[in-house]
Amino acid sequence: MSKAPRVVVQKDELHKFVSEIFKAAGTSVDDANTIAEVLLWANLRGVDSHGVVRIPRYLELFESGEAKPSPSMRIVHTRPGTIAIDADGAPGPVALVRAMREAIAVARTNGIAFANVRGTVHTGAIGYYAALAADAGMVGLGIVAGIPNMAYYGGRTGGVATSPLAIAVPSASGPHVLLDMATAAIALGKINQHKIQGIPLPEGAALTKDGVPTTDAANAAIPLPMGGAKGAGLSLMFEFLSSVLSGNPIMASYHAKDRPNRKHRQNASMIAVDIAAFTELAAFKDNVDATLGVLKDLPRADGVDELQYPGERGAKAYASRSKGGIPIPAATWEALKKDALRAGIAMPTAA
Amino acid sequence: MSKAPRVVVQKDELHKFVSEIFKAAGTSVDDANTIAEVLLWANLRGVDSHGVVRIPRYLELFESGEAKPSPSMRIVHTRPGTIAIDADGAPGPVALVRAMREAIAVARTNGIAFANVRGTVHTGAIGYYAALAADAGMVGLGIVAGIPNMAYYGGRTGGVATSPLAIAVPSASGPHVLLDMATAAIALGKINQHKIQGIPLPEGAALTKDGVPTTDAANAAIPLPMGGAKGAGLSLMFEFLSSVLSGNPIMASYHAKDRPNRKHRQNASMIAVDIAAFTELAAFKDNVDATLGVLKDLPRADGVDELQYPGERGAKAYASRSKGGIPIPAATWEALKKDALRAGIAMPTAA
Repeated sequence: MSKAPRVVVQKDELHKFVSEIFKAAGTSVDDANTIAEVLLWANLRGVDSHGVVRIPRYLELFESGEAKPSPSMRIVHTRPGTIAIDADGAPGPVALVRAMREAIAVARTNGIAFANVRGTVHTGAIGYYAALAADAGMVGLGIVAGIPNMAYYGGRTGGVATSPLAIAVPSASGPHVLLDMATAAIALGKINQHKIQGIPLPEGAALTKDGVPTTDAANAAIPLPMGGAKGAGLSLMFEFLSSVLSGNPIMASYHAKDRPNRKHRQNASMIAVDIAAFTELAAFKDNVDATLGVLKDLPRADGVDELQYPGERGAKAYASRSKGGIPIPAATWEALKKDALRAGIAMPTAA
Repeated sequence: MSKAPRVVVQKDELHKFVSEIFKAAGTSVDDANTIAEVLLWANLRGVDSHGVVRIPRYLELFESGEAKPSPSMRIVHTRPGTIAIDADGAPGPVALVRAMREAIAVARTNGIAFANVRGTVHTGAIGYYAALAADAGMVGLGIVAGIPNMAYYGGRTGGVATSPLAIAVPSASGPHVLLDMATAAIALGKINQHKIQGIPLPEGAALTKDGVPTTDAANAAIPLPMGGAKGAGLSLMFEFLSSVLSGNPIMASYHAKDRPNRKHRQNASMIAVDIAAFTELAAFKDNVDATLGVLKDLPRADGVDELQYPGERGAKAYASRSKGGIPIPAATWEALKKDALRAGIAMPTAA
C-alpha cells in the first residue's frame, strides 16, 4: 500500500484543539486540559493508537452515557495508605491523573499509597500516570483492567483483557525509565499495522475470529497472551487487583450466562512509592544511570545496533515531535473534522 | 534416558530433616523451621527446582560467607507504610517471611505496606511469600532481583536476571489464585528438563553460551526474556524496585568494568494490600470465585481439556504430595546424604 497522506500539527495547536473539543462536550476546563495532555502525550511519544485518534470514541461514550463529561467522582481515603475512587464514568485521563496525584500526595508522608479506581472508561497510555510519580521522585506503578478481548491461555475466544501494566522510575541525567506494556504478545494496534503493510504476524500472536491460530494479520481477530500462561495470568490478576478489589468485576459480569453486561468500562489501580523512604533520591537516580550505562555496554546480538531501555524510544519521539509536530493520518484528520464541525470548533493549523 | 530411581519421603519427616540440617549449620530453631517450610512448600507444589535440592547450595553459601546462618537483620519502619530491611545475608526464606509478615502487620491498619529487603540470598519459590498475604485476607505481591543470567532484549550474554514476580489473592472456596512467574520465556529448570528428555526448545527461549539462538536444549546456556522487550523490561524494573531502591544495585556492580562484584546476592520487595480497605473481604473472595467460574466455562482451543488459573496445578500437587509424600530424585538424595553425614544427622525415613 502507498503511504496515506497526513497532516502535521504543532503540539500547542493540537492541545488547544483537543481541549476545546472536550469543553464543547461538557467537561470542565481543567478536565479538558487533562484529557488533552494525556492524549497528546501518547501522540508525542509515538503511540498514536492512544492519542487523538480516540477522540471520536470518547465523544461517543459521552453520548451513549457510558462516560460522563461532568462526573461526580467520589474520593475516599479509606486508610492512611489507601484511596478508593469511584470515577462515576469519568474519562480515564481525568480519573487516573486524580488517582495518581492523590497517591503521590499520600506517599510523600506515608511512604507508599495505593489508589483504586472504579468505573472509568478508556484509560489511554497508562505510562503517563506512572510517569507522574517519577516526576515527583517516586516509583510509579499502574495497572488497568478492561473488557475481555484477548484469549486466555488455552482459550479460543476473547476471555480476558489485554490489560496493561506501567512502571516508571526517575533517572539522573535522562528521561524516566518507563515500562508500559500490554499483557498481549502483540498489541492490537501493531496487529493492525501488520495488516496494513501486508506483513505476516509471528507465530503465537493471534487467533482468527473462529479461534484458530493465524499468522495472517488480515484474519487476526483475537490477540494471544504474552508468554502463554504468563501474560494470561497477569491479565487475570489485574482484573482481581483492579476490578474485583473495587467491587466492580468485569470478567464475571461480561461472561455471565444470565444477562451479561458488555458495556465499555475499565477499573484501575495506581501505586506511588516514595524513593526517599528507602534511599536518598539522588543516589537512586545515579544508580539508575549506572545501571543503564552497563546495559548499553552489554554485548549485542548480531544485527542489533543498540540495547534500548524501557521508554527510551518514546522519549526520543517525544523530543522530536515536540519540535517538529505531530503527524496525523488523513483518516484521523477527517474524523476529527466531523467532530469539530458538530462542536463548532475550528480545526488546528496544520502543515 | 530411563527414569532415574527416586525415593519418596513424607512431608513431616522431610520437614524435620531439613530443619535439623539447618540447625546443625547454625541457624536458630525458628529460622530452621522457616527454611524447611519454604523449601518443602516448593516440593509439595511440584516446583522441585526450588525445594530441598537447594540445600547443598545453601550450606555452601554459609561456608563461603555469602550467606549467614545467624544474621543480624535490621528492620526499620521508615514511614508509616514502608519497611526497610537489611537482611545481613540471611537466607531468602528467613528474610522474606519476615518482610511479608511486617508488611501484613502494617497493612492491617495502613491499608498497604511495602517492605524492601537488601542483601539476602536465594529467595526460593517466591509464591510462598505472596501467599502469606493471601492467607491474611490480603493481596500479596513480591518481586526479586538477582545475579544476571538472562539475555536482555537484543543482547547475547547474561545481562539481566530471570527475576520473578508473584501475585496472590484469596478465593472463597478453593486455594489462593497465585501467579509465580520468572521474567524468562522458559525457566532454567524447564530448559534442563528438555535437555534430560531430549526434547527441542521452542524458538526464542534460549541462546548458546556464545550468544547464538538455539532450540537444542543441550546447547542452551542463556535464557531469553519472555515476550522479548517485555520480559527484559520487567526484569530491569525489578532491579530498580528491589536492588537500586535498597541502595544495593546488582547489575551495575556485576557488569562494572572496574572490579566487578559477582558474589551471589539478591534483593527483594514485598507488598501487602488489605482487601478490606477497599471492599468486604467475603465479597472479594466471592467475586474471585465467580471470575474463576466464568474462566472455566470459556471456549477452549482444540486439544485443551481445561483452562487452568494461576497456581491451580501447584495447589493440586500440594494436596497430592501432602498425602502421598514428596518424590526425591536419586541424585538429590545422594547429595543430601553427604550433607547429613557431615552434620551428623540421620536421613529421613523413605519409601
